[in-house]
Amino acid sequence: MTTTGRRRPGRRPGSADTRGEILAAARKIFAEKGYDKATIRGIAREAGVDPALVHHYFTSKEGTFVAAMELPVNPEEVVRLLLSGPREEMGERLVRFILTIVSDAQARQPVLALMRTAMTNEQVVGMIREFMIQALLLRVAESLKIPPIRMEAAFAQMFGVVLVRYVIQLEPLASADAEELIELLAPTIQRYIDGS
Amino acid sequence: MTTTGRRRPGRRPGSADTRGEILAAARKIFAEKGYDKATIRGIAREAGVDPALVHHYFTSKEGTFVAAMELPVNPEEVVRLLLSGPREEMGERLVRFILTIVSDAQARQPVLALMRTAMTNEQVVGMIREFMIQALLLRVAESLKIPPIRMEAAFAQMFGVVLVRYVIQLEPLASADAEELIELLAPTIQRYIDGS
Repeated sequence: MTTTGRRRPGRRPGSADTRGEILAAARKIFAEKGYDKATIRGIAREAGVDPALVHHYFTSKEGTFVAAMELPVNPEEVVRLLLSGPREEMGERLVRFILTIVSDAQARQPVLALMRTAMTNEQVVGMIREFMIQALLLRVAESLKIPPIRMEAAFAQMFGVVLVRYVIQLEPLASADAEELIELLAPTIQRYIDGS
Repeated sequence: MTTTGRRRPGRRPGSADTRGEILAAARKIFAEKGYDKATIRGIAREAGVDPALVHHYFTSKEGTFVAAMELPVNPEEVVRLLLSGPREEMGERLVRFILTIVSDAQARQPVLALMRTAMTNEQVVGMIREFMIQALLLRVAESLKIPPIRMEAAFAQMFGVVLVRYVIQLEPLASADAEELIELLAPTIQRYIDGS
């Protein structure tokens, strides 16, 4: 991630350092302006690079956010995954996907860190709120043609489970086998998707 | 709550000040020892009062914890409420009860404050974990004769909803009518209770 221990190579397009500087600039801009008002142009200006370079590295504002926050998943992946099989198994696919990602300590650290900050920092909460709504929930709800509030109820269930499993660590849920949790939770998520 | 603005009446049993001193001692002891290892005797010693006085004010260790953390509900109330009507309407009763409590800004502040601290403080997390398991989840699960993990899944759903509604404030869920949320969430909780 950082260039510590290496010789700093200067601002060369394509160097690891430039990428890192763009991400640092992105974190600053997202925190200051929120997700909605941040722009790739503004991030590029802050980093002292051409906007094309930000596009080159991170494709979109959403991709820049995901990389800047070190999130283990891109919303696009979530949509692709959900649509990649029968609709009646979407609940199970989503629960399995989320539990698999957070089962990796390294992948879940940035997510938990962001959640922690969000709980205590109004600015970060605003940024996450906008990203969640614009990039994740509204897009998934639209792709699946379900009311956003049902997607949010599903998100609340899985968010709560991640907190109970990894932050509060309530037993027996904290040590439960992933398959047991999938069996328990998939019908809940499926019902929100089905709209029944 | 405090005696600010009044003349401090000294350590008289039954005075508002004694009650406050017991609660301050309780917060200290619960934080230091966790919920399981804290005792009424230890709290009384810390406050410099007779254990009988702690019992007099707060009935039990659980009651002392609820008062010390200014929680708006006692686990006993939750159990009573759940058992106070037909089993097939428990999901709705629980969702309605929780949404009603947290709809009051003053009642939800201490809960959110505790959750916030829990997210960042290992000691507080330990204390909450033990209280949740011993005083709330295991007791409810036992009363309803359902596996604790199902109670924890229900708790995760409602915890997530409270966070999404009041902390992250994702729309449309944040502004949704309570009745709409009850309709959306009650079947989820009912299913966890039914074990289907």
